[in-house]
Amino acid sequence: MKARAAVAWAPKQALDVTEIDVEGPREGEVLLRVVATGVCHTDAFTLSGDDPEGVFPCVLGHEGGCIVEEVGPGVKTLKPGDHVIPLYIPECGHCEYCASTKTNLCQSIASTVWTGYMPDGTRRFSKNGSPIYHYMGCSTFSEYTVVPEIALAKINPAAPLDKVCLLGCGITTGIGAVLNTAKVEPGSTVAVFGLGGIGLSVIQGAVMAKAGRIIAVDMNPAKFEMARALGATDCVNPRDHSVSVKEVLVEMTNGGVDYSFECIGNVEVMREALECTHMGWGVSTIIGVAGAGKEIHTRPFQLVTGRTWKGTAFGGVKGRTQLPGYVENYMNGTIKIDPMVTHVLGLEDINKAFDLMHEGKSIRSVIVF
Amino acid sequence: MKARAAVAWAPKQALDVTEIDVEGPREGEVLLRVVATGVCHTDAFTLSGDDPEGVFPCVLGHEGGCIVEEVGPGVKTLKPGDHVIPLYIPECGHCEYCASTKTNLCQSIASTVWTGYMPDGTRRFSKNGSPIYHYMGCSTFSEYTVVPEIALAKINPAAPLDKVCLLGCGITTGIGAVLNTAKVEPGSTVAVFGLGGIGLSVIQGAVMAKAGRIIAVDMNPAKFEMARALGATDCVNPRDHSVSVKEVLVEMTNGGVDYSFECIGNVEVMREALECTHMGWGVSTIIGVAGAGKEIHTRPFQLVTGRTWKGTAFGGVKGRTQLPGYVENYMNGTIKIDPMVTHVLGLEDINKAFDLMHEGKSIRSVIVF
Repeated sequence: MKARAAVAWAPKQALDVTEIDVEGPREGEVLLRVVATGVCHTDAFTLSGDDPEGVFPCVLGHEGGCIVEEVGPGVKTLKPGDHVIPLYIPECGHCEYCASTKTNLCQSIASTVWTGYMPDGTRRFSKNGSPIYHYMGCSTFSEYTVVPEIALAKINPAAPLDKVCLLGCGITTGIGAVLNTAKVEPGSTVAVFGLGGIGLSVIQGAVMAKAGRIIAVDMNPAKFEMARALGATDCVNPRDHSVSVKEVLVEMTNGGVDYSFECIGNVEVMREALECTHMGWGVSTIIGVAGAGKEIHTRPFQLVTGRTWKGTAFGGVKGRTQLPGYVENYMNGTIKIDPMVTHVLGLEDINKAFDLMHEGKSIRSVIVF
Repeated sequence: MKARAAVAWAPKQALDVTEIDVEGPREGEVLLRVVATGVCHTDAFTLSGDDPEGVFPCVLGHEGGCIVEEVGPGVKTLKPGDHVIPLYIPECGHCEYCASTKTNLCQSIASTVWTGYMPDGTRRFSKNGSPIYHYMGCSTFSEYTVVPEIALAKINPAAPLDKVCLLGCGITTGIGAVLNTAKVEPGSTVAVFGLGGIGLSVIQGAVMAKAGRIIAVDMNPAKFEMARALGATDCVNPRDHSVSVKEVLVEMTNGGVDYSFECIGNVEVMREALECTHMGWGVSTIIGVAGAGKEIHTRPFQLVTGRTWKGTAFGGVKGRTQLPGYVENYMNGTIKIDPMVTHVLGLEDINKAFDLMHEGKSIRSVIVF
């Protein structure tokens, strides 16, 4: 079938909104109509060419709100009309990762998801007979896309897809990092580095965890109003200080924060985020994705004196099992998405969504088809 | 009073066994007769001059088995004749660290312990009127030493001091790292890097935690017999392999170990120890003390994919509260110390103990006075 899609033909180029061919679902696969999709920094990171796993041409996008159009042979848990969110980390329910309560990193199809193919090693997208790569197993910058059944979370059909699409990545990642990975306790002091969609969602997660103090850090003070609206108690702009932000936070908190979160992808900030936590019990969680070859570093003394360095992907959330509950939490008002949607654009304006993000003017742009 | 002591006059020099002056205990202090003391790599590290906090001249030694000789004013919990183990991490019972269940790093007297002074900022050791520094608040390489009451664990007087002195550092550190810091679960796979006294004690801790597989790693195969005797199920000599030990362990364990422990102090080994743990849930704990200015590093992807990097000091054990229980566990056979004592020497032979350690011929030498 034909579909309108935003194709990334090569790194660093604007997306090309054009008509492509989408092949129907094979065994275990589902054809989706994408109703809405968020635009995330990770899409921009891959488009920049810095993502070592980026392959081109591809259809980017991984924050989708979709409706099942057609199911392939063997698909048992979904039917046409179901509302779903595609998962870049699937949940097969059978592998050793799915069996563990400690991780959400189902590896059942990891070798294809991260190389741009469907699990059978082929592709469903093409133009003029030339194949186009999938992206993170989602490729939601297309009116129609094909995703394996095990990578689809079935959600409440009453939920607005142009909002809950954002639960497909950033918001869930931020909230899950607080609740699942760091396991922030009531009364804790939390620092959040970077106030994009993920950082703001960490603030939401910290509020849900009943943190006592939530310190938001960003070099763009325009982000502070939203951070405060979502629950930040303090805002720090590193540019306002002559000493390192680590020193500022340690001073503000009489020894350091209990939990910190890096939501940027900058390895030097990751170090500051670790070192601003409190001796004896500080836990720092890396969420941001660093450039190829970048390494984190610190003195081992930082860990020997009781700090813990962790990381998280998709907030430790097992998608098929737990994401429907996040949608319910949006519906009952516990999770706020609407304030994060600063721009709604048509597919033809998708490059503007990237511009707004790079200029720091948007939190999340949602593309509606 | 006069005391025979091994004085470190300067870095890199042999210790000088000589008579020094020891002043009596002041407010809150206790004068101890040292019956026996272990010789630990940390003593050698400071003597090497690589320890940025090392100050000279000093009396080294921090694994003591002692008897209270005299108590200073205000000391309420100890009396002459009590058997005690000095603690380089005290337990005041009042600070925010003592109040936390997450850490043992009481900071009540940290500013003096790590700079070579008693809490009141003075010293009790001298020779010919020239003061000599304390070391780690213990200075057990002296027939008599002075230690604050809050840094003394009162133990079962039936316990042999020439054995349980080793619970003052290495053995407790290794066992505590497994039980308190990493919290190894039954059936887990554990890797131990470095089979000195601490690494062998990690093996003991892993046995106590009912680990399913315990992989001991050392470049000196002479260490493997003892490792196996204490419970290691596999021994790996990195020199026997053409690929990195990380790759060997990942291959041996079908994806990585659940828990790893670095017991050497080498930042490159710390990286291998982290990266050989299993994606999704691996936890690596740093115990070894690295040289001044050395930094650990890795790709943040290692953490984002579910590994945790931690560290521990004195195994997370709160000394006054918990160390007496370690002594009881030695008495009832749960903790094995005797096989670790490979050499017993008089104070006059203390430099030989350092030689044996550097040559890899001893696990622990115990000095008896």
